[in-house]
Amino acid sequence: MDIDTSSLDEYLDDEGLDGYAVYADGDDSTQRYLSGFDAPDPFFTVYTPEETALLTSGLEYGRASREARGGVDRTSDYDYQSLREEYESGVARAKLQAAFLDAHGVDAVAVPETFPVGAADGLREEGVAIAVDSDGVVDDIRAVKTDAEIEHVREATVANEASMRACEDLLDAAEVRNGTLHYEDEPLTSERVATEIEVTLLEHGCALDETIVACGVDAADPHDRGSGPLEAGQPIIVDIFPRSKATGYHSDMTRTFVKGEASETVREWYELSQEAKEAAFDALEPGATGADVHAAACEVYEDAGYPTLREDPSTETGFIHSTGHGIGLDVHEAPSLSPRGEELEAGQIVTIEPGLYDPDHGGVRIEDIAVVTEDGYENFTDYPERLEL
Amino acid sequence: MDIDTSSLDEYLDDEGLDGYAVYADGDDSTQRYLSGFDAPDPFFTVYTPEETALLTSGLEYGRASREARGGVDRTSDYDYQSLREEYESGVARAKLQAAFLDAHGVDAVAVPETFPVGAADGLREEGVAIAVDSDGVVDDIRAVKTDAEIEHVREATVANEASMRACEDLLDAAEVRNGTLHYEDEPLTSERVATEIEVTLLEHGCALDETIVACGVDAADPHDRGSGPLEAGQPIIVDIFPRSKATGYHSDMTRTFVKGEASETVREWYELSQEAKEAAFDALEPGATGADVHAAACEVYEDAGYPTLREDPSTETGFIHSTGHGIGLDVHEAPSLSPRGEELEAGQIVTIEPGLYDPDHGGVRIEDIAVVTEDGYENFTDYPERLEL
Repeated sequence: MDIDTSSLDEYLDDEGLDGYAVYADGDDSTQRYLSGFDAPDPFFTVYTPEETALLTSGLEYGRASREARGGVDRTSDYDYQSLREEYESGVARAKLQAAFLDAHGVDAVAVPETFPVGAADGLREEGVAIAVDSDGVVDDIRAVKTDAEIEHVREATVANEASMRACEDLLDAAEVRNGTLHYEDEPLTSERVATEIEVTLLEHGCALDETIVACGVDAADPHDRGSGPLEAGQPIIVDIFPRSKATGYHSDMTRTFVKGEASETVREWYELSQEAKEAAFDALEPGATGADVHAAACEVYEDAGYPTLREDPSTETGFIHSTGHGIGLDVHEAPSLSPRGEELEAGQIVTIEPGLYDPDHGGVRIEDIAVVTEDGYENFTDYPERLEL
Repeated sequence: MDIDTSSLDEYLDDEGLDGYAVYADGDDSTQRYLSGFDAPDPFFTVYTPEETALLTSGLEYGRASREARGGVDRTSDYDYQSLREEYESGVARAKLQAAFLDAHGVDAVAVPETFPVGAADGLREEGVAIAVDSDGVVDDIRAVKTDAEIEHVREATVANEASMRACEDLLDAAEVRNGTLHYEDEPLTSERVATEIEVTLLEHGCALDETIVACGVDAADPHDRGSGPLEAGQPIIVDIFPRSKATGYHSDMTRTFVKGEASETVREWYELSQEAKEAAFDALEPGATGADVHAAACEVYEDAGYPTLREDPSTETGFIHSTGHGIGLDVHEAPSLSPRGEELEAGQIVTIEPGLYDPDHGGVRIEDIAVVTEDGYENFTDYPERLEL
């Protein structure tokens, strides 16, 4: 992968720092991005303008040497065993990491905001200067995707569409008895539909275990994953955000369905959300800000008389979240399409996902995923919008 | 859940601290344990001997109020919007969290080692005293399970056994062509078997996307997940460690299979590993240390002439990991069954998983999961050990 780290080099130079350090396991996206390595236990990585170096246990050494983006040192290279015998574990670890940094000519490092305070305090005790990168310099680099990363997200999107199709087919095939969806003679639940989606994702090389299939009142809370039998005539929000098992990159898509006939309100919400999505996409281009894109979606809802968070920060109904977010190794990453969204650049991948919520009617959300291009954007999502099934 | 937090209260009292603070999302097990709440974005929780209090965004407030173990404040209760307008985001967040702590009478807090350094430094700037809990006081509380937690792990174990059965049936049904396993006329790969396992787990309410199905040389590296076609006559290590989607608790089991005939070496390794497992279980009881249990397994291998890490810290073959680990909300948590393992207590849930590794022969590992009881242990695993299929 061909990462442009010139802004990181510039930041280190401006701040008088030698390198950028991460201490986390491979689930941490900054770790995985800088080291190119995925391990279940925390390991230490330092980036400098000259090299990237990892410090791992003997157990991880072989795999790290083959897979990592940089050189790999072993904890035994720094006589960790003796340190462990002489000092309590936190101190031993700090002395180990300080010796590793010293061996790579690093006295002063930037660390991400999420760097563990235990390790940071320990390194400070050993005389290493630690500066917290509160501007998210690496986050901003990660936000602009390489061609390979764009391809990874595109592949995850294809898997995502297959799982949405499996979901829609299942809802289509369901029968309504006494107002409740049934499938194979049993009430069809959120959990059953989520399993259908997640099994399909696995069969397409992707993983997710927090799928949202939220009906009725559940759908009025954007973070409620939904549970129990699905009801006819109520909006069902299906939000799927899988990670490719091979690459670690995500996709993200939401559709809203009603089994049977939607209420007039829900139909209006759906059409407004389609309009808001289109308005947001119309605003999406390099040079525009995330705030501009968010404003475009908000205006559609506000013009129709619905509250938005930017007009009323305390509202609990209406459009109560941001218009979208960057996506890559994390489901939520930079840039933000919200009132604080900064200038957008080509190569950033974002979701566009306006919606309306009210416990009296449920919720509606429609979400596509797109890459910002030199002259606008390319929408990766190729999936129909069909409200009533 | 009926957690005994008396040791935490004692620690806070000894150290002159008012509370224990966590700032993390619901994937962080300390957060989930203390707050009882699971949200995708980081939120702030403070435990004091008098109360547990959460600070969440408006978006999470409703769900948190229903689900969390403590009271919930909203960021808007502390006029976060104005702070965001006046200060840069890190400072605004620190002032918000400091105001929240102040409102709950907390001036000095312990935090876990993994508490983010950005938030810690910010709070220190605001005059909050931060002490890093390097002894893992909350980890030690988490290690001793309540009856409800024991039940959660037992349930996940049943799902795990169903998925191991699906795996063994698939390997059983495979045919050997030119030394490679085939199923439905295609080479049977690690990935295909992992999908079979993970689909079965989903159907049983559990999730996992990092299943190990490692054959031949892959199996010689305990952290290699395996890839590509499976070979006959080679050991295949299958390690499954699912999380219940409903409760968040894990189980963990490993079996090793050979399709066709195992080599004499692998058969010897298998029998030794059965013996080592039995020896470790014989040593497992309250009052024994994790080091004792580990020693019991090591002795079996050492007596048979195989290297272990405790005898030779630099060995890359033989028994090259610890005998087991605690398990609960995390797959790996306290206590440790290793040379540094401390005294065991009833209610702790641990794995016992001895194994042997050598790139010339592959690897063998057998793993059960058990709870330490007043008079020994109860093995949850009810799954046969069958080497050759």
